[in-house]
Amino acid sequence: MTRNTGMHTSIATVSLSGTLTEKLAAAARAGFGGVEIFENDLLACPLAPEEIRARCADLGLSIDLYQPMRDIEGVPDDVFVRNLRRARHKFELMNRLGADTVLVCSSVSPDAVDDDVRAAGQLARLAGLAEEFGIRVAYEALAWGRHVNTYGHAWRIVEAADHPALGVCLDSFHILSRGSEPEDLEGIADIPGEKIFFLQLADAPLLAMDVLQWSRHYRCFPGQGGFDVAGLLRRVLAAGYRGPLSLEVFNDVFRQADAGPTAVDAHRSLLLLREAAGAAELPSPVVPTGVAFAELLTPDAEPVTALLTALGFTRTARHRGKPVDLWQRGAARVLVNTAATARRDGTRLAAIGLESPDPAAAARRAEALLAPVLPRRRAPGDAPLDAVAAPDGTELFLCATGDTEPPDWRADFADLADTPAPCATRIDHLALTQPWHHFDEATLFHRSVLGLTAQESVDLADPYGLMRSRAVANAEGSVRIALGVGAAPTDDTVHAAHIALATDDVVAAARAFRAAGGRLLPVPANYHDDLAARYEFPDGELETYRELGILYDRDAGGAFRHCYTETVGRVFFELVQRDPGYQGYGAVNAPVRLAAQHAGRR
Amino acid sequence: MTRNTGMHTSIATVSLSGTLTEKLAAAARAGFGGVEIFENDLLACPLAPEEIRARCADLGLSIDLYQPMRDIEGVPDDVFVRNLRRARHKFELMNRLGADTVLVCSSVSPDAVDDDVRAAGQLARLAGLAEEFGIRVAYEALAWGRHVNTYGHAWRIVEAADHPALGVCLDSFHILSRGSEPEDLEGIADIPGEKIFFLQLADAPLLAMDVLQWSRHYRCFPGQGGFDVAGLLRRVLAAGYRGPLSLEVFNDVFRQADAGPTAVDAHRSLLLLREAAGAAELPSPVVPTGVAFAELLTPDAEPVTALLTALGFTRTARHRGKPVDLWQRGAARVLVNTAATARRDGTRLAAIGLESPDPAAAARRAEALLAPVLPRRRAPGDAPLDAVAAPDGTELFLCATGDTEPPDWRADFADLADTPAPCATRIDHLALTQPWHHFDEATLFHRSVLGLTAQESVDLADPYGLMRSRAVANAEGSVRIALGVGAAPTDDTVHAAHIALATDDVVAAARAFRAAGGRLLPVPANYHDDLAARYEFPDGELETYRELGILYDRDAGGAFRHCYTETVGRVFFELVQRDPGYQGYGAVNAPVRLAAQHAGRR
Repeated sequence: MTRNTGMHTSIATVSLSGTLTEKLAAAARAGFGGVEIFENDLLACPLAPEEIRARCADLGLSIDLYQPMRDIEGVPDDVFVRNLRRARHKFELMNRLGADTVLVCSSVSPDAVDDDVRAAGQLARLAGLAEEFGIRVAYEALAWGRHVNTYGHAWRIVEAADHPALGVCLDSFHILSRGSEPEDLEGIADIPGEKIFFLQLADAPLLAMDVLQWSRHYRCFPGQGGFDVAGLLRRVLAAGYRGPLSLEVFNDVFRQADAGPTAVDAHRSLLLLREAAGAAELPSPVVPTGVAFAELLTPDAEPVTALLTALGFTRTARHRGKPVDLWQRGAARVLVNTAATARRDGTRLAAIGLESPDPAAAARRAEALLAPVLPRRRAPGDAPLDAVAAPDGTELFLCATGDTEPPDWRADFADLADTPAPCATRIDHLALTQPWHHFDEATLFHRSVLGLTAQESVDLADPYGLMRSRAVANAEGSVRIALGVGAAPTDDTVHAAHIALATDDVVAAARAFRAAGGRLLPVPANYHDDLAARYEFPDGELETYRELGILYDRDAGGAFRHCYTETVGRVFFELVQRDPGYQGYGAVNAPVRLAAQHAGRR
Repeated sequence: MTRNTGMHTSIATVSLSGTLTEKLAAAARAGFGGVEIFENDLLACPLAPEEIRARCADLGLSIDLYQPMRDIEGVPDDVFVRNLRRARHKFELMNRLGADTVLVCSSVSPDAVDDDVRAAGQLARLAGLAEEFGIRVAYEALAWGRHVNTYGHAWRIVEAADHPALGVCLDSFHILSRGSEPEDLEGIADIPGEKIFFLQLADAPLLAMDVLQWSRHYRCFPGQGGFDVAGLLRRVLAAGYRGPLSLEVFNDVFRQADAGPTAVDAHRSLLLLREAAGAAELPSPVVPTGVAFAELLTPDAEPVTALLTALGFTRTARHRGKPVDLWQRGAARVLVNTAATARRDGTRLAAIGLESPDPAAAARRAEALLAPVLPRRRAPGDAPLDAVAAPDGTELFLCATGDTEPPDWRADFADLADTPAPCATRIDHLALTQPWHHFDEATLFHRSVLGLTAQESVDLADPYGLMRSRAVANAEGSVRIALGVGAAPTDDTVHAAHIALATDDVVAAARAFRAAGGRLLPVPANYHDDLAARYEFPDGELETYRELGILYDRDAGGAFRHCYTETVGRVFFELVQRDPGYQGYGAVNAPVRLAAQHAGRR
C-alpha cells in the first residue's frame, strides 16, 4: 500500500468495524498516519493503555485525539467539580496512552446553562488541569449542542477563556449539516490557525432528517455525500491550520463492513479531498475513451462460447501463452479465459479493458489513490499492460488498442481467422455487482480514479428486495458502467453481471440470436400490454417486441430497446438499441427483467 | 390459521415480498379476504389477467383495488386525451382481472396545472369511461401531490365532479404524514360514507424526513409506528365507510422478508387496529404476572447442567414421560430438555412459561391474533397446558403455578429432591434474539397479544455492527423480556439468548458461581477505570467489580450491577442486582459485553 507523505492523515476508530486492534491494523495498512481513539473502543479493549500505545507505535500510528468528553462546561459549580474529577481520570489515562489532545463536545445536558462567561471560565479551568498533564483541549460545537451549536459560538467562548491549552475542534459535519451558506463559513478566517486544535472531516448525503440521527447513522467519507467538504477544508487551511486531517464517520454500513477495505476507501477519500481543496497534487485523471474488451473467466468454455457464437461473435485469436481466446463481433471484444483459477466461482466477468489516451498515467493516478496495481507482465513475452483492481476485485486493464507504444495488447494473441465482417456491434455498457458494504466506495473510485461522471442512484425493485444502481460514464458515452448492489448484505452473489452489446437494430440482432439457437429471457405479456397503454407503436412493432421479449423505454432524448440472453454462471448479455440522445439504461424495466430472471432459476 | 369473519380485510401486493403468486398465497394463508393488485407486480407476472383472477378466486381472495393510475387529471387537453387512451387499456385489463375499483393518485407531473375545475371535469370524464366498464374511480391525494395533497382538497374536487363512479380513496399515511392535528381530521365527517370508495392503512415511525422517501421506504403496519391510525379509522367508520380495510405498506425490510410471516404480522396489525378503533371485539389481554420457567433445549445436557449447578441450581424434578429435568434456585426455574429435536440447533432457549391469571383466556386472545396455538397435551397423561408460538418460534406456555385448575404444570414432574433452601433468586428478565426482518412484529406481538408494555428501542454497538434492543414488561416488572435484533439480516444466529437471574447480592452470587467452577465473562480493566472516573464507590467495591467482571449502571431510580457467564451453545446467563427503582437493562454496558463475547469466540 502506498504510504502518503503529505499532510498527516488520521481516522477515528469509530469509523471502522471490529475490535480496537483490528481497527488500528486496518488504519495502518491503508496508510493513515494516526488515529483518534474513540473512548468506547478503548473501554471494550482488553489491552492496557500502555499496550495500545505500543501497538500504535509498532504500526506507525500516532494517537492524534482521545474522544469524546461530554457535558463538561456551562454547568453548575457542584457538577463542574465532579466533571473536573472525571477529567483528571481521563488525563491520567491519556498520559498512559500517549495522547496529547482531547475532544470536548459542547454540552447537551439538561444541567447546562446558557452562560458563555461560565462556560469560558470552566473551560479555562479544564485547560489549566489539562496543561498539568501536557494535554490540549479541543472544544467542538455539536450541531445539537444545548446552548453552543455553531463553530463561531465555540470560538467566541474559547477566545474569551484565553488559555494556551484550549482551542477549537472544527467538524465538517457539525458545521455543514446546519445548511451553512458560504458566508456562514467566513468566520473561519477569523480563527487563528494555531487555535484550531483539530479538524474532523465527514460528508453526508443530503437528507432532510433529524440531525442527531443523520450524524449517528448516515455520515460518509468526503466525496460520497452532498457537502462541500473541500470548500471547508480550503478555508481551514487558509486560516493556518496545520494539524491532522482526520475522518470521523458514524455509519451503520461501515460498522458492519470489513475494516480493511473501509480504511482504504476512507484514506482514498482524504487524498481526493486534499486534491479538491488544492492542498495536494495527484497525477491527473486520464478519462478512458472506450471499452477495449471484457474478459470472462470460466471453468467451462462450452456454454460461454455457445452463447457468444449465437450472438454472432467469432473466435478471432488465441493467446500465445495462456488459455485465453479472443472473440469479436464488430468492435465488441470478449476474452474467454479458462485458467484454473476460475473453477471456484463459476463463469464471471473478471476484467475490463479500457481504452486510455495514456495508460501509464492512468495507472499512476490509480496507484496514488490506493488501487492495487496488478503486475504489468503476467507472463514472459506478454506485452506489458497497466492494470489495477477496482474495489469489487474487477481487473481494469488500461489499453491503447492499435497503438504501438505501449504495445497493442493484441500482440499477445495469435490470429485464428480473418477479421470478421464489420458491423455496428460494440459494448454499450457493462453492469457490475458491487459488494453490499462498498457501494459508495465503488462510485467514488470510478468517478475519481478513472475520471468518469456518476449519474443519480436509482432504486430497482427486485421481487425479493430493493436494489440500487448507479451508472458512471465518460462524456461521449463510449464508456458506461452500471454499478449495482443487492438488497441486503447477503445478496452479493445473487445478481449476475452483464455485458450490453449496442446494435443498430435490436430486432434483427434478437432474431439472429434466436435463429442461431440462443435463448432470450421471456417477458410477460402483461408488460407489453402496459406498453400498449403507454405508447403508440407503428403496426406490428409491439407484436415483434412481444415475440422476442424486447423491452422499451423512452426519455427526452429518445428511445431505448433492449432484451436479455439467458444467464451462464454469473454473467448474461443484453442487446440494446440506443437512440443517440437517450441517457439511461432502461431502469424502469429492471423489475420485470429481475422477476423473469428469478423465475428462470426455479 | 383463523379466518376472520368481521369486516373485509385486504392488503396491497406491494406490501409483501416475492412474485405475485407468492404474495397472493401468503395473503390468503394469513386470512386476508382480498388484495390490492399493484401494477408492477402484475407486469412482472407471467400469468394472464384471467389466470390471476382464477388464482385469487381459488385462494378465496377478492381483488379489491387495481393501483395506481398516475398523472391523469389537471393536465392540458392533449395530454388528457392520451391519458384517457391509457385508462381505457387499463379498464379493459381490470375487466379481465375482475377488479372493479381503480386508484387514481393526484398528479405529480410538471404538466399538471393548478385548476380544480379542470381536474374535476377530467375526473368526471374518466369516471364516465370507467362506468362503461363497470369500474369505480377512487381519487387519492398524495401527500406530495403537485397541486392536490390533502384529502379535503381531493374531496372538494370529487364533490364538484359529481359523478356516481367517482369517489375518494383515503390513505392514513398521506393524511397523517402531514402532521394532521385532530381538527384537521374533522373534514372526514363531511364526506358521505358511500363516496369514500377505499381506505388504505399504513403507519410509520415519526421521522423528520422527506415525505416521499419516508413513504416509499419506511411505512409500517398499524401499531408499529407513531401515527394514530385507530383514531383515523374511527372517523372514517363514523363517516359511514363500509368498504375494505386495506394495508398499503412500502417498506424496505418487508420487501426482503419471507412473505408468509409478514402477511400474518400484517393481518394481526389490522385485527388490533379494528380493536383499537372500537370496531371489533377480541378476547381481552390477560397480562402475565410472572415467569414460571425458562426451557432450554439441548443435544447434550452436560455443559448446561454444569452451568446450572455452578449457578446454585438443584435438579428438583424429572418429567414423567419425557427427557426433561426441572432445575430450581429460589423462584427461578429452568427446564432442561434433551429431546432429539434439539440436535440440529445446539443449546437454545426454546420456551418460556408465563404465569397467567387466566391461561385459557390468554390463549384465546393469542389465537384470535393469529399466534399458532400449540397442542395442549404433548403426551398422554401430561397436564393440559395452553401454549402459543411467538413470532420468533419461542413457545410461550401459559401457566398458573400452584393452582389446581388448570392443573399445575409441575404435576407432570416427579420430585427428585427436597425443595431447595429458599433464596431471593428469580428470573429478572429473558433476552431473546429476533429474526432480523420481524423485529417490529415481535414488539407488537408481545405488546398486544400478551398485554406487555414496550420501552423505547435502543441501539447497541456491537464491534461488528449496530444491534437494536427493545424491552417489553408488565407494570410490576415481574415479567421482562428484552427483544434484540442483530446488525444485519445475516446476524440472526450470531447473538445468543440469555436468562438474567435476579439476586439481592450480585457479588456473593458471582463469587459463589466462580467458587463452584463457573466461568464469568472477563471485562477489560479499561471499563472499570472508566467507572472510577464516572462514579465514586465505597472503598474496595470497584476492586471487587474488577475482580469479578461486574458491570455497573445507574438511572434516576437506582443502580444496576450485573455480570455474565460463559455461553453454552446459543444461551448464557446473567446475574443481576437491580435496585427497585432502576428501569433499564444495563444497555450502556452492552458494547463492552458484546466485545468480550466476540473475543471469547476467537
